[in-house]
Amino acid sequence: MLKPLGDRVIVTVDKEEEKTVGGIVLANNAKEKPQTADVVAVGEGLVTEDGKKLPMNVKKGDKVLFDKYSGSTVKYEDNEYLILHEKDIMAVID
Amino acid sequence: MLKPLGDRVIVTVDKEEEKTVGGIVLANNAKEKPQTADVVAVGEGLVTEDGKKLPMNVKKGDKVLFDKYSGSTVKYEDNEYLILHEKDIMAVID
Amino acid sequence: MLKPLGDRVIVTVDKEEEKTVGGIVLANNAKEKPQTADVVAVGEGLVTEDGKKLPMNVKKGDKVLFDKYSGSTVKYEDNEYLILHEKDIMAVID
Amino acid sequence: MLKPLGDRVIVTVDKEEEKTVGGIVLANNAKEKPQTADVVAVGEGLVTEDGKKLPMNVKKGDKVLFDKYSGSTVKYEDNEYLILHEKDIMAVID
Amino acid sequence: MLKPLGDRVIVTVDKEEEKTVGGIVLANNAKEKPQTADVVAVGEGLVTEDGKKLPMNVKKGDKVLFDKYSGSTVKYEDNEYLILHEKDIMAVID
Amino acid sequence: MLKPLGDRVIVTVDKEEEKTVGGIVLANNAKEKPQTADVVAVGEGLVTEDGKKLPMNVKKGDKVLFDKYSGSTVKYEDNEYLILHEKDIMAVID
Amino acid sequence: MLKPLGDRVIVTVDKEEEKTVGGIVLANNAKEKPQTADVVAVGEGLVTEDGKKLPMNVKKGDKVLFDKYSGSTVKYEDNEYLILHEKDIMAVID
Repeated sequence: MLKPLGDRVIVTVDKEEEKTVGGIVLANNAKEKPQTADVVAVGEGLVTEDGKKLPMNVKKGDKVLFDKYSGSTVKYEDNEYLILHEKDIMAVID
Repeated sequence: MLKPLGDRVIVTVDKEEEKTVGGIVLANNAKEKPQTADVVAVGEGLVTEDGKKLPMNVKKGDKVLFDKYSGSTVKYEDNEYLILHEKDIMAVID
Repeated sequence: MLKPLGDRVIVTVDKEEEKTVGGIVLANNAKEKPQTADVVAVGEGLVTEDGKKLPMNVKKGDKVLFDKYSGSTVKYEDNEYLILHEKDIMAVID
Repeated sequence: MLKPLGDRVIVTVDKEEEKTVGGIVLANNAKEKPQTADVVAVGEGLVTEDGKKLPMNVKKGDKVLFDKYSGSTVKYEDNEYLILHEKDIMAVID
Repeated sequence: MLKPLGDRVIVTVDKEEEKTVGGIVLANNAKEKPQTADVVAVGEGLVTEDGKKLPMNVKKGDKVLFDKYSGSTVKYEDNEYLILHEKDIMAVID
Repeated sequence: MLKPLGDRVIVTVDKEEEKTVGGIVLANNAKEKPQTADVVAVGEGLVTEDGKKLPMNVKKGDKVLFDKYSGSTVKYEDNEYLILHEKDIMAVID
Repeated sequence: MLKPLGDRVIVTVDKEEEKTVGGIVLANNAKEKPQTADVVAVGEGLVTEDGKKLPMNVKKGDKVLFDKYSGSTVKYEDNEYLILHEKDIMAVID
């Protein structure tokens, strides 16, 4: 199991849906990568100068919208994850 | 529903009005994009080092003037939104 | 009405006076743009980490000298304004 | 023995496993360097402006996932180590 | 009258003395611009995060030595001034 | 005697050992400069905003591992020293 | 008299000694400029956010070792001085 440190959030990025027209798969515009993901693990929060941990605003199971081009992609046990800082998460999708 | 995090503000940018002269649509000067938008959702505010949340100065329904070239455009459920940080909002239009 | 946020100040930049010699309008040196303006609206002040607002040092009606190349020009209801941060105002003209 | 200073963490980077197919060693994709490592020593923590030490979130023996391209490689007594700052460690592998 | 804001200082830069040899004016080395000036007005001081004003260390009438290439030149009522931040003043000449 | 200021540490960098094979000196790989050094003097520590001095974590006589490309080389009384900031020292060798 | 502001230190840089061999002046290696200087005046110290002055660690008369390429050279009453910030002074020579 991956336990992110600090304000990091581990997510699995949503796959691009295949659009089909009458059964024919259409290629998506390569420039519009999905920016939605599912949170699989969150860190304990950023530690301030006073040694306090700032609570996280996202939790495991949240569907989130993230800032494209942010985060590091890692492979672990054949799954691909994106590790983001919480500040790279723009919104929670309710 | 999109719930922005931190000091983020989700807006819908105003459409450029078509100028017509005797019914003929005139092209706008492409360089003068609208910088006004309607606030559709606001975050809970930036968290300070002490763990306090700074209150937001804009609210849902406000018409705002924003700093051009700021923000990230996202598509969600066929609508296009702009996600700004509150600091990118220059003024509220009353 | 435009209500600037934070430490922003909305001004109208002074027009370049036309210099005339015997009624003939002389072109000004293009490089010497006016750097004086009239304050039309001020924000409530920058919010500190403690959540306090720092009072503004300029007020509506002040004539100010501003740092050239600073600020964003906006058009609103057919008027052109410059939106500055207070730090871009170098002096008040008394 | 190496005693790291501040929030530094000394790790030994995992070796790339050789993939064999029917006994034949396959070259790994050179671009996918391992990002997992074993913690061999940790510093006492970053000292804040108040002179307090912030506790470390990783400990000797932890298996960690680190940010690629971070850290300094050093050779000491014929072993090769990577010296990271704690902020370069993205997650602990449990 | 110009009232500088914050930690700004308005000065008039000393003119380069003409060196004469037997009445003949010699050109100065263009690279050695004067770096001395007379203080004509000072701001009320930089405002800290706590809302306090830090007292200024120069006052009207001081002769100062300033960091070359710093400051903004402004023209006001046919006089030319240099507006500096106090940190750009290296020394007071007593 | 050199008394370093602030969090500076003066060290003498270890010489590269000559490797000999049967008495023949072998050139070392020029790229692997030694990164170990002996501490000859330490400053009194960095002064914080509150005017307190943060204690140093290295002391005279320590053997240390330092970040290559950091520090300034100085010659003093025919000896060559490297002056580092404490943050450039990665580990103490025990 | 020059009274430096803040944490500034005014020094006179040591002259390069002429090396003579049998009375013949030898050129020094131009790259090894002296980095030692005599302190002629010190400022009152950097002012912190709380309005306190941090005491200076060098005093008039000290011989110091400074960071090459730092400081501004000024001419005043036919003497040449170097104005440094205290952080550019690496060590006091005792």
